[in-house]
Amino acid sequence: MDVSQGVCLPEGFYAAGVRAGIKERGLDIALLGSDRPCVAGGVFTQNAFSAPAVRLCQKLLASARSVRGVVINSGNANACTGERGERDAEEMSRLGEQALAQKLPGGAGPCLVAQTGLIGVYMPMDLVRPAIAQAGERLSRSGGPDAAQAIMTTDSFPKTAAAQLALAGTTVCIGAMTKGAGMICPRMATTLGFVTTDATLTRRAAQQAILRAAQETYNRVSVDGDTSTNDTLLLFANGAAGGETIDVGGAEFEKFCAALREVCLELALALVRDGEGATRVAEIRVEGAASEDDARRAAEAVARSLLVKTALFGADPNWGRIAAALGYSGAKVDPRRTVIEIGGVALMEGGAPGLGDAARAAQAMREKHVLIRINLGLGRAAWRTFTCDLTYDYVRLNAEYHT
Amino acid sequence: MDVSQGVCLPEGFYAAGVRAGIKERGLDIALLGSDRPCVAGGVFTQNAFSAPAVRLCQKLLASARSVRGVVINSGNANACTGERGERDAEEMSRLGEQALAQKLPGGAGPCLVAQTGLIGVYMPMDLVRPAIAQAGERLSRSGGPDAAQAIMTTDSFPKTAAAQLALAGTTVCIGAMTKGAGMICPRMATTLGFVTTDATLTRRAAQQAILRAAQETYNRVSVDGDTSTNDTLLLFANGAAGGETIDVGGAEFEKFCAALREVCLELALALVRDGEGATRVAEIRVEGAASEDDARRAAEAVARSLLVKTALFGADPNWGRIAAALGYSGAKVDPRRTVIEIGGVALMEGGAPGLGDAARAAQAMREKHVLIRINLGLGRAAWRTFTCDLTYDYVRLNAEYHT
Repeated sequence: MDVSQGVCLPEGFYAAGVRAGIKERGLDIALLGSDRPCVAGGVFTQNAFSAPAVRLCQKLLASARSVRGVVINSGNANACTGERGERDAEEMSRLGEQALAQKLPGGAGPCLVAQTGLIGVYMPMDLVRPAIAQAGERLSRSGGPDAAQAIMTTDSFPKTAAAQLALAGTTVCIGAMTKGAGMICPRMATTLGFVTTDATLTRRAAQQAILRAAQETYNRVSVDGDTSTNDTLLLFANGAAGGETIDVGGAEFEKFCAALREVCLELALALVRDGEGATRVAEIRVEGAASEDDARRAAEAVARSLLVKTALFGADPNWGRIAAALGYSGAKVDPRRTVIEIGGVALMEGGAPGLGDAARAAQAMREKHVLIRINLGLGRAAWRTFTCDLTYDYVRLNAEYHT
Repeated sequence: MDVSQGVCLPEGFYAAGVRAGIKERGLDIALLGSDRPCVAGGVFTQNAFSAPAVRLCQKLLASARSVRGVVINSGNANACTGERGERDAEEMSRLGEQALAQKLPGGAGPCLVAQTGLIGVYMPMDLVRPAIAQAGERLSRSGGPDAAQAIMTTDSFPKTAAAQLALAGTTVCIGAMTKGAGMICPRMATTLGFVTTDATLTRRAAQQAILRAAQETYNRVSVDGDTSTNDTLLLFANGAAGGETIDVGGAEFEKFCAALREVCLELALALVRDGEGATRVAEIRVEGAASEDDARRAAEAVARSLLVKTALFGADPNWGRIAAALGYSGAKVDPRRTVIEIGGVALMEGGAPGLGDAARAAQAMREKHVLIRINLGLGRAAWRTFTCDLTYDYVRLNAEYHT
């Protein structure tokens, strides 16, 4: 299984990446389609200034029984662009639909749109129109790597993931690509993710599976705490592997969800590893919370703390900053019951400095993946989240380039 | 009026700053007292891991009818130090009380405690005990500058402010000192503020006045969004100017509150200007919100956004980042009604790029004080907050030094 093929690994999916000239250099238009109608599910940003492309996808997913694919551009988020931005997103959808129908069998059907890049700039449609047509001509079963390239902004590597599993006796495949939080010139941090599968799913199974996967993976990572206007995660299922139709509920659905979660977790971790300027990743595990909501608040406060993130950059096992973040997280905490461990070393116990070996914790902080484990001692709820360090390069990437 | 005298400007207040050796260098113990009993009000961190000194102040303010002063140390927050930390804070209070009673008339009475510095390290009480005694011997009417020095951590300048006003026919004075968010070695960002007045206030007037001032000034500034375990803002009123006793309500109380707010605003702005690594300050004014809570959420999301803070460092009028922050703030917003102005230039209007002169906005971003004005177009509520930029030096200060 060649994971770099990403979204083209499952049967029946075709992709291409071309250059329109939206970005200063590199591929910036991707087209992904299925050779037969497929069902799709999506999860989107909750930002109130959501981009026209986001609202268009939501509308199409709510109304269309099946879709044919998605057209994606990097370099321009087409957000805060008023009615003209809405018309541009709709035109891209129509052009994508034509390009897919011309090249692939299966007839006409809606094409979704996803966009990432600078906010508040109108789309250069004169560049986009011919590029979508060109992408249609270049659609191929081996276009996965080009598509993964074309959705990148300041990502330092393309991000794909895949899985194979037996589902009701049929071997099915899941393929995926994503882009990380990055800026060029500068671009707003935006996450886009695309997952394909040749499994046969009902519409509601596709929607519920991608929602669950997002909650357990994409929604657990943080680079800078800024939620973009364009975040989009889509799942396409075209049934090309044959086999039974999987609906919500039952063991086969759970099996598919588990495989999808692993694929999405791999993508989400790649996002954090490739976070702007990041040099290492911390996994924050909160256990023993009174409720899941408390566990989530505690983990997110630690993951978002600038003081924790700079300590991570400095490889400093500064547990006082973790304690302070827990204290202001809003989660129910009791200092006397709280245990903070870094790399398996207990640094705080019973509201006071622990007896763990600080030198060993400092060693653990120098690894690429640091485990910070917090037991609140109040219950059985847990939450896990991932964050990256805050570095000079984060500041450089986001301050040096100009609109 | 020599503002550098800070807390010693009002009649009857004495201060000193000495070196105990808690920090690597410089003064690190301050003692402040009144030559007669005074009433006090306080506002404290809401961090659940609050330091023993914070809890001790809260207890004393709730039970004691009057206090004599406060002993303060920098270099050690004495937070997350368990029962030993509580005993140490109590001992410091007793030693402060003895030192004040020995030097100043007015008899024995409680001494408050405030601490700032590294979390999770036990107090070096062998150094602290003789230093508090020495501070008592050195108490003087001209000790304000030394005290303002002794409470600093990585502050680059001491911060004092003062005001004079006529209250019910008597001229009274307000004096104040504060410390900013800083790290050495590294120390947890902590804000401490101390205000004295020779006005005559009731206990509840002192408490309500300082609470209102905090809400309108200290609670409106953000350096890195991390709420410390030790934040403390105290007001001491000793009545040395004579005149009527001011209680809550009435024109004279409002007059005092207005002067106190100006003093605290000056201190709070000094904190932001001297935020870790900061090169400029942004004033975020949200207007036209549907509710005050919406206005606050919107302003705080913009003030805390790392992308906005790095754009501020880069002097880039990147209004898309501001729009994105408004969109995820949780405040009620409507992109079509939102106006974003930088330096008086409308950059976003009606959910689309505005017609303002971007070059003029870019010029405004290069000033030391940048005004970002947002009109949500949904109502009449407003909120104002202040933030500083996120710079290389912030990362350096917080990553390079080790526990």
